[in-house]
Amino acid sequence: MHITEQLPYYAVIFTSNRTIDDESGYRRMNQRLETMVAKQPGFIGVETVRDDKGYGITISYWKDKKSIRAWREHTEHWIAQEKGKAKWYEWYRVQVCKVERAYSGGSNIPVAVSDDVKSNGDTDQGLVNGLEG
Amino acid sequence: MHITEQLPYYAVIFTSNRTIDDESGYRRMNQRLETMVAKQPGFIGVETVRDDKGYGITISYWKDKKSIRAWREHTEHWIAQEKGKAKWYEWYRVQVCKVERAYSGGSNIPVAVSDDVKSNGDTDQGLVNGLEG
Repeated sequence: MHITEQLPYYAVIFTSNRTIDDESGYRRMNQRLETMVAKQPGFIGVETVRDDKGYGITISYWKDKKSIRAWREHTEHWIAQEKGKAKWYEWYRVQVCKVERAYSGGSNIPVAVSDDVKSNGDTDQGLVNGLEG
Repeated sequence: MHITEQLPYYAVIFTSNRTIDDESGYRRMNQRLETMVAKQPGFIGVETVRDDKGYGITISYWKDKKSIRAWREHTEHWIAQEKGKAKWYEWYRVQVCKVERAYSGGSNIPVAVSDDVKSNGDTDQGLVNGLEG
């Protein structure tokens, strides 16, 4: 995913641990939400990774806080009908963040990086945050 | 990981695609950085997920921007000596964010969630951002 949005934009970080319950209900809900969110004003994109133990991070990107609020209001009624959603997650955390700085780098950078998301092939910050267990 | 930090705190989102090169060099660098970062003033914690294709999201949390800057300056010299770091990543993006709102929920919420990170067992925002492919 490329982000060509002007800074600052917003990120909603969703960290979670999936339960093993109701896999088909979960997938159905996700597919439906994906279709809906793509049409939503102010939606920039989404990135998601989940490991084989059910632990995952999903980040959705938004133009501003108003867009995040509108999406929540848009889906509230629909989600309320999907009873028992808590069962899909053992645990989750939501963090709403203002993205103040962004840049990218690496040995094979995709082309469509805008001026707003600075490209930098040799930056320290990148490595510094590539901490993994 | 529990976050008990007062809002607002900071998140550094590191999204990347690993190359398959130099696995041992990469692991050595990561272990070294993990030890170093844990002692760093203002460091709150780190969350990381990588899938089997090499795509990953790592988020480090910090008390303030000053702490992020200090960590970068602290590691700059050391990292400069580790030549060719760009080879570890095909591509990466770094986003520095101010976390303005945080809450958690689910059917099995861990205990040590502070008052600052609001707990909410039945929230719409959670589901809304659980979008997965």
